[in-house]
Amino acid sequence: MYVLGVDPGVARCGYAILSRSSHAIEVQEAGVIRTNKDTPLPSRLLQIFDTLKSIIASQSIDVVVVERVVFKTNAKSAMAVGQALGAAFMAAQSASLPIAQVSSNEMKLSLVGDGSADKWQLQSMVQRLLGMDKPISPPDVVDAIGLAFCFLSASEPVRQGWRVS
Amino acid sequence: MYVLGVDPGVARCGYAILSRSSHAIEVQEAGVIRTNKDTPLPSRLLQIFDTLKSIIASQSIDVVVVERVVFKTNAKSAMAVGQALGAAFMAAQSASLPIAQVSSNEMKLSLVGDGSADKWQLQSMVQRLLGMDKPISPPDVVDAIGLAFCFLSASEPVRQGWRVS
Repeated sequence: MYVLGVDPGVARCGYAILSRSSHAIEVQEAGVIRTNKDTPLPSRLLQIFDTLKSIIASQSIDVVVVERVVFKTNAKSAMAVGQALGAAFMAAQSASLPIAQVSSNEMKLSLVGDGSADKWQLQSMVQRLLGMDKPISPPDVVDAIGLAFCFLSASEPVRQGWRVS
Repeated sequence: MYVLGVDPGVARCGYAILSRSSHAIEVQEAGVIRTNKDTPLPSRLLQIFDTLKSIIASQSIDVVVVERVVFKTNAKSAMAVGQALGAAFMAAQSASLPIAQVSSNEMKLSLVGDGSADKWQLQSMVQRLLGMDKPISPPDVVDAIGLAFCFLSASEPVRQGWRVS
């Protein structure tokens, strides 16, 4: 099973493809889609959409897991995240893939055992879970890996609860 | 010159294509893209994106004018509007069209002479400006027509100030 995790953002959108075999969960590919702040927003959104579509087309993805953003922040930043989230949704939907949403709290609770773990604790745990020699960075990639890992570790009923399509 | 006005929203997205010749400004086509609230959000966004792309492809559009939403509202609704706005941006950008953003206040100030005009005043003025026999509805279509009309009526420097790409 191949899962694409996406940490949506307009300036930086983290992504990671994780696979699960009978033996192990492995990172197949991970990175950050960066868009230039001097580029008009419509181009930046289309860049995220097109890049995610290419990433999806390049591997046999089974599910896309996107971070469910819970807002404590202002309306302006909510709108920006909504735009990036929408682009990720549309990229997944255009490939007719099932989509799940997992909050950062749910992901940290699942992986670290503490929903309010900080980014260093998460980074350290992701490194251990994947048996890697050195810490993974940047945080956008750690989050994307965490989302996909959390989905792959979950039971089917929990996964169903996360489904949005 | 053909201008597509878009009043973005996930449940209802108003659109209108207006043309300007040497004689008059005319509505070529207008309507509302409705999406079903029981359909998962990714499908709804893709429906808006695909429908707007089809509308753009069906006419020789020169500019897309999208409402610039100014938030006094909560983060949750800001995120939903951001998603619909993003889909409209991406549809315009995927056809490499110039995009402008005009706020509701700017549009009402331009057409009615009062930035805080209510929807009935706007509806009445749009009817008069287009020389139509009966009022236009629903409000989503009135707004989309208003945005395109306002752009077509504006001077070039004002239009440039509205450009986002």
